[in-house]
Amino acid sequence: MRTFKITVAYDGVDFAGWQIQPRRTTIQGMLERALVKLTGQRVAVTGSGRTDSGVHALAQVASFRTPNWRATAADLANAMNVHLPPTIVVLECVDAPDDFHAIADAVGKRYRYQLQIGGTRSVFDYRYCWQIHGDIHLDAIAAACESFVGQHDFSSFQGSRSPRKTTVRTVRACDLLRESTSLHHGERIVIEIEADGFLYNMVRNIVGTLIEVGKGKHDPSWIADVLAARDRDAAGPTAPPQGLFLQRVDYRPFA
Amino acid sequence: MRTFKITVAYDGVDFAGWQIQPRRTTIQGMLERALVKLTGQRVAVTGSGRTDSGVHALAQVASFRTPNWRATAADLANAMNVHLPPTIVVLECVDAPDDFHAIADAVGKRYRYQLQIGGTRSVFDYRYCWQIHGDIHLDAIAAACESFVGQHDFSSFQGSRSPRKTTVRTVRACDLLRESTSLHHGERIVIEIEADGFLYNMVRNIVGTLIEVGKGKHDPSWIADVLAARDRDAAGPTAPPQGLFLQRVDYRPFA
Repeated sequence: MRTFKITVAYDGVDFAGWQIQPRRTTIQGMLERALVKLTGQRVAVTGSGRTDSGVHALAQVASFRTPNWRATAADLANAMNVHLPPTIVVLECVDAPDDFHAIADAVGKRYRYQLQIGGTRSVFDYRYCWQIHGDIHLDAIAAACESFVGQHDFSSFQGSRSPRKTTVRTVRACDLLRESTSLHHGERIVIEIEADGFLYNMVRNIVGTLIEVGKGKHDPSWIADVLAARDRDAAGPTAPPQGLFLQRVDYRPFA
Repeated sequence: MRTFKITVAYDGVDFAGWQIQPRRTTIQGMLERALVKLTGQRVAVTGSGRTDSGVHALAQVASFRTPNWRATAADLANAMNVHLPPTIVVLECVDAPDDFHAIADAVGKRYRYQLQIGGTRSVFDYRYCWQIHGDIHLDAIAAACESFVGQHDFSSFQGSRSPRKTTVRTVRACDLLRESTSLHHGERIVIEIEADGFLYNMVRNIVGTLIEVGKGKHDPSWIADVLAARDRDAAGPTAPPQGLFLQRVDYRPFA
């Protein structure tokens, strides 16, 4: 029996999210289908976490175990890619310790959320960003971002599906980045959030709340009140899925 | 009766090309559907040329005439965008002379063809470039590009559909551009071709032929032979549609 760790990128547009569901095309489902073809047996693939329909990944991590692969791990990555659609790619496959587990061993994650502020809508980017109309105060968003950093109870930012036992997480970074854009297309901004772990819909709820601040509906100091409320209704709306990218999942190096 | 000139961008992925077809979603069809809603009458939209299924446009130009619009041309662009899908956008709408015609008055066009050479396939770019595996000699492609510039009979590069009376065209520029890319994704190259007009599939046939040179199957001097042959079978294969963007259509300024 060998244990593998794979790093996977995918465009979430065509998929009903990560997790296998009956009669839906999912990323986990496509990976397991490729592994059945290559190993002749059903192999359960464990992702570091689920992503919703329309959410993308630059480097999702997953693990699985099989006795039926004799070539190198790199060969397995190449072989899987032959059996995957063009919107899913295995970037890396390595042999992992027997007890490696993509969920339990993750020590941190970083997400990236792309937004376009103003300008004519971009026909090429609409699947990959949230388009915001009207004036947005970026300095206010940057100030509000700082309130998320540190250890907090994120109950106010937890979606109602998949509640967790503890809602305390440590956010290590919450940064507003401005990127250059081309003619017509307004301003591209990116919000990157890194934490030891995330609650369901936590990034999309944080981004939706930050945009309320950016629109001037609340001051940046409102974020502290929302955190203190421990009530989902206290925060802003959930940002749409297409702007969200799982950027990185961190693990301790193998011994 | 007013005559309008519109500049339109679209992502070709979701469409069966520009031209209206029964039971297919096309760009021309979506524009005419929007105009029926806004003017209460059927309005025929004339594009500067057709684009095939999967081909994109950064700035296609089209013209149409209607007596049923009383607000400004800019208002018409905004109103059309409300009724168009997110993958089509009217970038500009201006009043044009009564006799303006998007096909007849075009004096030049520029196309852009995107390729990715080597590297792991990009899940986000596969709808927008042609991925080439193996070694490619870029210097040979750059040398071969020069052979296309000038006035030539392009019969060898004309697709069998929609033959034209004259196959002589003047290519004003045929340039190989190298663009920076991110980790994993090999080298992004772009071939831009500008001419007074193009035959059906001419850009895709030129690109497919240039890649034969890049793979070392022929020397750059072969291009002159292919042009002289005036025979489609003498040239290379047709490059796939998803790498192709109509970049610009040029007209003389209105008097």
